[in-house]
Amino acid sequence: MKIITNLKPPYYAVIFTTIISENLHGYKETSEKMEALAKLQKGYLGIDSARNEIGITVSYWETLEDIVAWKNNVDHTEARNLGREKWYKTYQLRICKVEREYGFER
Amino acid sequence: MKIITNLKPPYYAVIFTTIISENLHGYKETSEKMEALAKLQKGYLGIDSARNEIGITVSYWETLEDIVAWKNNVDHTEARNLGREKWYKTYQLRICKVEREYGFER
Repeated sequence: MKIITNLKPPYYAVIFTTIISENLHGYKETSEKMEALAKLQKGYLGIDSARNEIGITVSYWETLEDIVAWKNNVDHTEARNLGREKWYKTYQLRICKVEREYGFER
Repeated sequence: MKIITNLKPPYYAVIFTTIISENLHGYKETSEKMEALAKLQKGYLGIDSARNEIGITVSYWETLEDIVAWKNNVDHTEARNLGREKWYKTYQLRICKVEREYGFER
């Protein structure tokens, strides 16, 4: 159990907020596969994820170009299409430039 | 149960990722009070929050100045100090400029 620290702005964050549907057949496997695949992409810096009523996944990337390349990845595109067809009631995706960062550790 | 949509970039997001401690006395009350207080601040646009192993709260703001004003709010400062003393093992706070946004709704 850890959160992503030790990144140096400026870099990029993709904030993905979701509400999932009742039909989650295949969802967990595909989520895990996509997270493993994201880690292999150029410019990938890390991912934080939490879910209770809603889900929030934030992935961190070196550049906007890295985000676009991951968006265009074939397996990711297929997973996204399944997500729209089956798993997500609604989602919102935000592309952000991380400008400042502060950490606290006891 | 809903997520924040309908915002128009550019605007700002504060991504707050946390790991909480075992001592949560007063945590829930203060969290709720701070969320209610945040909603009253100038430039506040919305908040999304999820927690299981880690917590992720993303608040949305019109400008950087609005974020600084909320940071300097006296009640918020007091709550943050309690958070560091008691509730959080570790946290990371990122100030981001939201540049692009995409939504999906079934």
